[in-house]
Amino acid sequence: MNTRIDAIRREIRDRGADGALVTALHDIRWAVGFTGSSALLLVLGEAAHFITDGRYAEQSEGEVEGAAVHVPGYRLYEHLATLLPAGATVLRQADSLTLADATRLEGLAPETTWLDATDLVTPLAAQKTEAEIGAIARAQAITDAVFDEIRWWIKPGTTEQEVAAEIVYRHLQKGAQRMSFEPIVASGPQSALPHARPTSRVLQAGELLLLDFGCVVDGYASDMTRTVALGEVGAQEREVYEIVLRAQEAALDAARAGLTAAELDAAAREVIADAGYGEQFVHSLGHGVGLRTHEWPRLSQQNPSPLPAGCVVTIEPGIYLPGRFGVRIEDLIVIEEGGARNLTASPKSLLVL
Amino acid sequence: MNTRIDAIRREIRDRGADGALVTALHDIRWAVGFTGSSALLLVLGEAAHFITDGRYAEQSEGEVEGAAVHVPGYRLYEHLATLLPAGATVLRQADSLTLADATRLEGLAPETTWLDATDLVTPLAAQKTEAEIGAIARAQAITDAVFDEIRWWIKPGTTEQEVAAEIVYRHLQKGAQRMSFEPIVASGPQSALPHARPTSRVLQAGELLLLDFGCVVDGYASDMTRTVALGEVGAQEREVYEIVLRAQEAALDAARAGLTAAELDAAAREVIADAGYGEQFVHSLGHGVGLRTHEWPRLSQQNPSPLPAGCVVTIEPGIYLPGRFGVRIEDLIVIEEGGARNLTASPKSLLVL
Repeated sequence: MNTRIDAIRREIRDRGADGALVTALHDIRWAVGFTGSSALLLVLGEAAHFITDGRYAEQSEGEVEGAAVHVPGYRLYEHLATLLPAGATVLRQADSLTLADATRLEGLAPETTWLDATDLVTPLAAQKTEAEIGAIARAQAITDAVFDEIRWWIKPGTTEQEVAAEIVYRHLQKGAQRMSFEPIVASGPQSALPHARPTSRVLQAGELLLLDFGCVVDGYASDMTRTVALGEVGAQEREVYEIVLRAQEAALDAARAGLTAAELDAAAREVIADAGYGEQFVHSLGHGVGLRTHEWPRLSQQNPSPLPAGCVVTIEPGIYLPGRFGVRIEDLIVIEEGGARNLTASPKSLLVL
Repeated sequence: MNTRIDAIRREIRDRGADGALVTALHDIRWAVGFTGSSALLLVLGEAAHFITDGRYAEQSEGEVEGAAVHVPGYRLYEHLATLLPAGATVLRQADSLTLADATRLEGLAPETTWLDATDLVTPLAAQKTEAEIGAIARAQAITDAVFDEIRWWIKPGTTEQEVAAEIVYRHLQKGAQRMSFEPIVASGPQSALPHARPTSRVLQAGELLLLDFGCVVDGYASDMTRTVALGEVGAQEREVYEIVLRAQEAALDAARAGLTAAELDAAAREVIADAGYGEQFVHSLGHGVGLRTHEWPRLSQQNPSPLPAGCVVTIEPGIYLPGRFGVRIEDLIVIEEGGARNLTASPKSLLVL
């Protein structure tokens, strides 16, 4: 009995199909628990078939729940074709299937009718169980602990790359499987680039330092941003910091199930716009986090979807003044009925290192 | 004047097309130098168009060579459609294009005839310039230096995860951008799994330890495997080690331009088969390395392609005895006329730590 496979079956019925081919590895992991890098999942009305190659024979027997395991060797699509009922209508993930594989499969199963679906599993996987939230919380706790250590370790004279190396090392030492993305360590004018990569630039007193990092525990990601001051910084740096913090807190206060993503984005964006920095908040408020670091829902001005209870999202407004500095503050929260639960413990008043 | 764009143009002409749409980011990087995560490249007979989104406006102006830069906002495919000559026949990378994007593009450009190509850039990018080989050699030199440090640091009582954390940390401290893949640190029976992940298992005296890791420098990857002994190991461990080493050296001696991938694989495989372990060498001899850690050519028994001069490949035979132990030894080499150049300096006689 696998309730996630059952949820996919409801989608199949609602869309008038006989089955669904799941090709996105993160969706396969969500549905049956497989953590490897090569697999297909075919869900039919009664049966569910998981197909992998010989490298994963042993691993898949231990991991896969709710589907029959097939290990036909490397020709996964050829084997899949033998499992398709004659004349069936099958959903396929058009955004997680290459044109080459789609063409090959059409040749192998000429009697199957394919319906393209791009949102088959995404909304299902967005609503996390307590076990999933627990894994995300453990990942975020490691990220919090690393921030608490490195804030005492960082000092002018260090390079961005050295700080990044230290952040990675301490996450791995504390049991993270890996980082959820390459850490952003952006000092002074570099902090005005929302996706800056660590460079050999030496940290200098009197400037801001933006740190954005996270890790993976049991497959689930964490994500946090803090902006700190290296000694005394200027009045505008402090002013911008306080505006971003107020915007972030406004969004945290507003967050609850049923609010739309666009409404939540607006809660923070209005604070920043009212302070005269609307044009400098150049990205969305946040994004879903789970088996992937960036997943649905995107908290953008263009997303009219109501937020479901149980989804985990980042709240990360920012203000970027090109050539000068940037500030971003990011927490990870669980959307609940009537409010939100913050998984992030790191302090948010401006730290002077 | 961009000679790589010219090489793509020759492919376009040879295949009777008017243009090519390059969608694989690593191929776009190879062709025009862009290192970001969102781009399309359209190569036509006279013009070449690079399209990215607003996040990369500044970066692409600095990086892209040999193509006109377009930054239309987020609707890259809509803009691409406006650049397609009426009635043109255009190659597309069917293995690097999702079905959803292909369908969208067909709707946006109904008068374009698309020809699916899966090998448009791969063989071109396999032949490295000296500058590219230089970047790979610098990455491999960091990997060698890390191995030379950690061989003195590793001892029984340490966990696999602690060793992996140390490997990552030291690469980043030495200037690696990132790891080219998650390090494999596999002790005792874990070493019999070719793709083991680091666990909390404690290293024990009297067993083998398999270490497989690499990093990225200037976008190019390194890759190396060494198997070491933790104190005295048994006679069969030593015997298997010597067989793998002889097999690896046989392949290194045989390697030269013009030999086929299958012939090179056979040079190592015969040594292992003659020693009675043919069934335990469960993977291919190696793979190409460049902007990706795994790229063309695959050194497998099924690949009849002659190896071109200038390609960089791993030579990594292994023997795996399930439940007991495994041995793999891997160097990174440049295929040249009449021989090969080894980019790896780490010692290969069995080290006893």
